[in-house]
Amino acid sequence: MTVSHASFNITKTCRGSQARTAELVTPHGAVPTPVFLPVGSQGSVKTLTPNEVRDTGMNMLLANTYHLYLRPGIPAVERAGGLHKFMAWDGPILTDSGGYQVFSLAGLRRVNDEGVVFRSHIDGSEHTFTPELSVQYQESLGADIIMVFDECSAAGSSYDRLEQALKRTHRWAERCLKSQRRCDQALYGIVQGGVFPELRKRSVEFLTSLDFPGYAIGGLSVGEPKQSTYDVAGETAALLPEDKPRYLMGVGSPEDLVECVSRGIDIFDSALPTRVARNGALYTPSGRINIFNAQFSELQQPIDATCSCYTCRTFSAAYLHHLFKAKELLAYRLATIHNLTFISKLMRQMRETILDGTFLSFREDFLVNYQPTDEITRLDQKQKWFQSRNNNS
Amino acid sequence: MTVSHASFNITKTCRGSQARTAELVTPHGAVPTPVFLPVGSQGSVKTLTPNEVRDTGMNMLLANTYHLYLRPGIPAVERAGGLHKFMAWDGPILTDSGGYQVFSLAGLRRVNDEGVVFRSHIDGSEHTFTPELSVQYQESLGADIIMVFDECSAAGSSYDRLEQALKRTHRWAERCLKSQRRCDQALYGIVQGGVFPELRKRSVEFLTSLDFPGYAIGGLSVGEPKQSTYDVAGETAALLPEDKPRYLMGVGSPEDLVECVSRGIDIFDSALPTRVARNGALYTPSGRINIFNAQFSELQQPIDATCSCYTCRTFSAAYLHHLFKAKELLAYRLATIHNLTFISKLMRQMRETILDGTFLSFREDFLVNYQPTDEITRLDQKQKWFQSRNNNS
Repeated sequence: MTVSHASFNITKTCRGSQARTAELVTPHGAVPTPVFLPVGSQGSVKTLTPNEVRDTGMNMLLANTYHLYLRPGIPAVERAGGLHKFMAWDGPILTDSGGYQVFSLAGLRRVNDEGVVFRSHIDGSEHTFTPELSVQYQESLGADIIMVFDECSAAGSSYDRLEQALKRTHRWAERCLKSQRRCDQALYGIVQGGVFPELRKRSVEFLTSLDFPGYAIGGLSVGEPKQSTYDVAGETAALLPEDKPRYLMGVGSPEDLVECVSRGIDIFDSALPTRVARNGALYTPSGRINIFNAQFSELQQPIDATCSCYTCRTFSAAYLHHLFKAKELLAYRLATIHNLTFISKLMRQMRETILDGTFLSFREDFLVNYQPTDEITRLDQKQKWFQSRNNNS
Repeated sequence: MTVSHASFNITKTCRGSQARTAELVTPHGAVPTPVFLPVGSQGSVKTLTPNEVRDTGMNMLLANTYHLYLRPGIPAVERAGGLHKFMAWDGPILTDSGGYQVFSLAGLRRVNDEGVVFRSHIDGSEHTFTPELSVQYQESLGADIIMVFDECSAAGSSYDRLEQALKRTHRWAERCLKSQRRCDQALYGIVQGGVFPELRKRSVEFLTSLDFPGYAIGGLSVGEPKQSTYDVAGETAALLPEDKPRYLMGVGSPEDLVECVSRGIDIFDSALPTRVARNGALYTPSGRINIFNAQFSELQQPIDATCSCYTCRTFSAAYLHHLFKAKELLAYRLATIHNLTFISKLMRQMRETILDGTFLSFREDFLVNYQPTDEITRLDQKQKWFQSRNNNS
């Protein structure tokens, strides 16, 4: 079906990289890209009010259909007049299809061509998602961009297994398109295929034949080495139509954002900046700091003197250190405000330098100064996080 | 010693009750009384930024010397330039002496005339508080109003035991006065004596002979019936000098505030409105509601249509219900904002009606409409809270 509003206007492309800047038009306003979407899984960007999210410079966010379906339930959000009204956010929203959570968080029961039967990670109750139901739920939630329901394979799956999942994902993508009723939501396709270029290529070919208004790259940032993420994202982006938005799902660290903007990605989402903030990991231009470190108990300066966020304008590192040690709830807010402000500034700087032709030197400076978490620690943390999710489910 | 700044100017007294309204002048601004102080135990009114506290209408707060002494430590706050600067609150602050926590929260080791040796509820380490040290710590924190170090007896203590504690409290009060070095802080005496009018009278006589710039009534709201709280507060207030502020420590429910303003109290503090908020108990003109109740899952209106707080202006009861069920940290903030706004509006209404001569009918209307938590439930909840505190220590 034709989506009447979808519009993506490229303003400038970078010479020397695949980076580009554009305007993504939605029913709730236009958003400049590259853009990062903070995650409001349950209808709240954890710890923040909508005003505060806006003050960090974020102007679009992601919510999880799976979480909202289980709690408060789709009808409850519908009765409130849709998700925008329910959570008092008047900017653009993107909802995922529920696929990722159903396959990673829920207790999985059965998958067949029809759909997925799974158990709630909250109370173990049994539920069914199909492509049609996912679209229906997302239409009830009323986000500006919605996603096809896909089969997400575990990291490290074999070629054969990924190929089977891919075929099903393609059939489901067609069914999602067919079941779409609202014309004011842009339904994006999701390219799968793991780390196999051949599968990614086939997925792009199939999905682009259906002519979606935008394309996501799924199945990355699930435990593979960072270089693989970058390679697959870049190779897949290069295959996608130039005039459509490209959304890299679940990617989120500062260095990843820079690397992947370089490779032609327009939209990102990740819970990483807000999750690590609540653990006391704060972004600075030279890398992530751990506010629990004793050195910060004496620092009367803000954690990042170059930052203009409310936290850095108002409080010392010593005070933040104290709040985290004392487990004061204010700590998690102040850290979230800081990390989201850092990321939104980073995205703005990338847009500006793409526009004025200095993106390549910006990228180089940023990556020279920013010390990422080392790869072994990173994969170890990611593994622990996956396990803690599964233990909770 | 003479405290240069202390000033308490009574504007109006009520005919037909002991209520009065006044201006309490402090180095960080003047505050109209009757005033309620929210509690920022560890240098943060739980979940809120200083701006938000201000937006609820609160303009003065209380912090706990005991908590700040243990974490981050008095020297850390001193290095930050004092408590106002550390927590970025430029309004008046009152610190308690640490007495209440030492006797109720810490692991108590030894009490003698010199002071108290206790164990930290955080790590069991041993510490000593004396009247002189308490004043020294409070001078380092730099609050506008500081309190004498007193011996707090358990609720239900015998006359003889309370009398012994009272004598020591009086000796300590003298030592606190003598050890005061700063002249920009008002040091208040604390009247003890449990529920015995004779002891309260003796305590008032002794303390007023020392001529403190303000007097607190301690040892109430520790498990006794509400009527006792009101009776003792009223009888004690009547004995205190008319021209000095009267501070009822640890009192805090809406009905208590109204009853005790009627009895001539000027200053209140309590963690109750913020603590119950985090448990989902929200104040409305007809009483406390429990936001977890299923009925609220369907309510598309704010929890209190008469309330002008950010929470009620922005979100439905259904959304708040969802946030509490989903354990979203935003829930605790929004509820705290609401309850503090409710209390500050109540205090403002009392000041206004005292001024315009309609306080008695305001009191009657309020108490008719406001359904307090029933006494059995209340004492049971209080007992559970005391126990949970002790289990944590």
